[in-house]
Amino acid sequence: MPKVSVKGQNMPESPIRKLVPFAEKAYKANKKVYHLNIGQPDIKTPQVAMDAVTLHHLDILAYTRSEGSEGYRKKIAEYYNRQNIPVNYDEIIVTTGGSEALLFAMGSIADTGDEIIIPEPFYANYNGFATASGVTIVPVISKIENNFALPPISEFEKLITPKTKAILICNPGNPTGYLYSKEEIKKLAEIVKKHDLFLVADEVYREFVYDGEEHYSILQEESLAENGIIIDSVSKRYSMCGARIGCLVTKNKQVLSTALKFAQARLSPPTFAQIASEAALQTPQSYFDEVIDRYKKRRDLLIEKLQEIPGVKVGTPKGAFYCIAELPIKDSDVFAQWLLEDFDLDGETVMVAPAAGFYSTPGEGKNQVRIAYVLKRESLLKAVDILKAALEQYPDN
Amino acid sequence: MPKVSVKGQNMPESPIRKLVPFAEKAYKANKKVYHLNIGQPDIKTPQVAMDAVTLHHLDILAYTRSEGSEGYRKKIAEYYNRQNIPVNYDEIIVTTGGSEALLFAMGSIADTGDEIIIPEPFYANYNGFATASGVTIVPVISKIENNFALPPISEFEKLITPKTKAILICNPGNPTGYLYSKEEIKKLAEIVKKHDLFLVADEVYREFVYDGEEHYSILQEESLAENGIIIDSVSKRYSMCGARIGCLVTKNKQVLSTALKFAQARLSPPTFAQIASEAALQTPQSYFDEVIDRYKKRRDLLIEKLQEIPGVKVGTPKGAFYCIAELPIKDSDVFAQWLLEDFDLDGETVMVAPAAGFYSTPGEGKNQVRIAYVLKRESLLKAVDILKAALEQYPDN
Repeated sequence: MPKVSVKGQNMPESPIRKLVPFAEKAYKANKKVYHLNIGQPDIKTPQVAMDAVTLHHLDILAYTRSEGSEGYRKKIAEYYNRQNIPVNYDEIIVTTGGSEALLFAMGSIADTGDEIIIPEPFYANYNGFATASGVTIVPVISKIENNFALPPISEFEKLITPKTKAILICNPGNPTGYLYSKEEIKKLAEIVKKHDLFLVADEVYREFVYDGEEHYSILQEESLAENGIIIDSVSKRYSMCGARIGCLVTKNKQVLSTALKFAQARLSPPTFAQIASEAALQTPQSYFDEVIDRYKKRRDLLIEKLQEIPGVKVGTPKGAFYCIAELPIKDSDVFAQWLLEDFDLDGETVMVAPAAGFYSTPGEGKNQVRIAYVLKRESLLKAVDILKAALEQYPDN
Repeated sequence: MPKVSVKGQNMPESPIRKLVPFAEKAYKANKKVYHLNIGQPDIKTPQVAMDAVTLHHLDILAYTRSEGSEGYRKKIAEYYNRQNIPVNYDEIIVTTGGSEALLFAMGSIADTGDEIIIPEPFYANYNGFATASGVTIVPVISKIENNFALPPISEFEKLITPKTKAILICNPGNPTGYLYSKEEIKKLAEIVKKHDLFLVADEVYREFVYDGEEHYSILQEESLAENGIIIDSVSKRYSMCGARIGCLVTKNKQVLSTALKFAQARLSPPTFAQIASEAALQTPQSYFDEVIDRYKKRRDLLIEKLQEIPGVKVGTPKGAFYCIAELPIKDSDVFAQWLLEDFDLDGETVMVAPAAGFYSTPGEGKNQVRIAYVLKRESLLKAVDILKAALEQYPDN
């Protein structure tokens, strides 16, 4: 029998995927499960985006250009310019989700065995793209005590080798909710310039910033013109994860022409989704104001209630819609499974994402979970009450 | 300045892409260009597929499952069963186009430096996916004299090394239009079984078969249950290239679970496109009868007219909507450029795809072009007349 590849065997499974059979068991037992584990927002997609697809007048659902339709790219550029990010439309390659943008970026800048430094905890699927691309992730730890701020630059310096090709950040961060300050971005700019590295920034949560803070994009930093690569996506911004539209943005002409070759091989990004995404750019500011206000209230509620639970450690995230909480337990994989399998409070339980899967260093994050606040306030309140009761009853803590 | 990867530098450009600036020059000079170079059909997408999207009732454009929605996969399985291809829905992973299915297949079965044997000429983007995956393509030449039939199995045997992981075929073939016979598939089954290789078959043109011939899928061959991987796509079948929906089909459980990990990393295939593709499965047989009749008539006209041109060698393809023609010229790259830049017949010219880009062996196919018959009969007639006149005037032949 022919064998699968070593790379394929090494492809990681999603940290949540392992829990799916236990969630299914909970459903079968008629338990209600509050999902604190997912990143699928419950927010409605802007009507203008949905209408654009409903009202399409296509006879033939044809390929678009590999780099995305010119009309759409021009409107994306206008969006960036409104955010004070100076980008031309020909510096944008439309991709099938932020996922593909990341895959193109890794393929364009790193060869098999090359290294990319990433502050951990980080978005778990970076592991998958790295394995698929033959790239080694070198983690640099950020600490819950500092609310997952940028680790000291000296820690990065220690990890740089001749194989290091880039530093990758997620800003604001999934799973930490941390928002990098302008000063932190400037420090990163300095180190990547000094060592001739790329700085890849996953900025898909750009709009989700609270408490009057401002997001500072790597391409607002002029010195990063040759080194900066933005990974972006419409998924969270317009609550249209199923569109599968993102983009790669860079002012580095060599990276652009290289990423374009990857884009050409797969022909084009999806056409209907580009129509929806182009229309989504007309979403009125009031939509975002409302959504961000809603997330902020959810965050405030969640963090307040979590901090009331004895033994729980959690800071206030400044962006995105996740937080990492430390729980008074030994192993969150076991705890998350127990919540689904063996626990309920009046027939209800919660599903959380064990945080170890967001770390690359073995053993890190074992007493942490990621919680997403993509549920309504009442559900969120209920979920935290259940979590509190569970921690009181949990035999292994 | 940071540098792009070696892999990125080695990513091939599409053989047509190089001609784009010359096509643009031709447009600027107000020449009418007949496109014999493209694979984008001019056939209308089935109304039932378009309507499904127009009539959607989604509030939130959410992710689907990474392997595709269960409802859609069950209907795909029914489609295969109607084609006498015995497949269960859980042996199908929905992908973002056939492109992604191929990328998942390569990643699942081959590591950096591993080899895949492909009869050439082959679909040029296989080169891109191989480069992106670190896989080496080993070509085995098929000949225009034999209408690009399967090369003798002894030729494959000569190329098999410990690094060989698979044989990849396209059936019916792009760019050759060749349809492998049941006997040829059985021969391939024997050799892959003997050497423990995978047989990957790109069957996206399955329906486009003429003259009463029948397509024989690799998964109709029972002995290939563990070795066979089908790459499929809705792009050509329903003239919906812009959907970007395909699938990977295999009965090999290890390949399935490995490919699923690649699928999970990129979250899900596009949602709108899955809705359209699921509805497309209701397309009545009359649509295909009409489309295939139209392609057959175009093919007959094209081949008849091409064979009338002195010095042109071309066989009658049994499937897909391409043919490879040998022209009385030295270098089809130069000729294709000359057609756009320096030639016109009453203000009109043609664009062809130079065939060298479909070969992996340097120097092969230099006097050949790929012609797609995705134009209306009148346009096709006109285009061949122009080609004939061009060959008479061409100074370098």
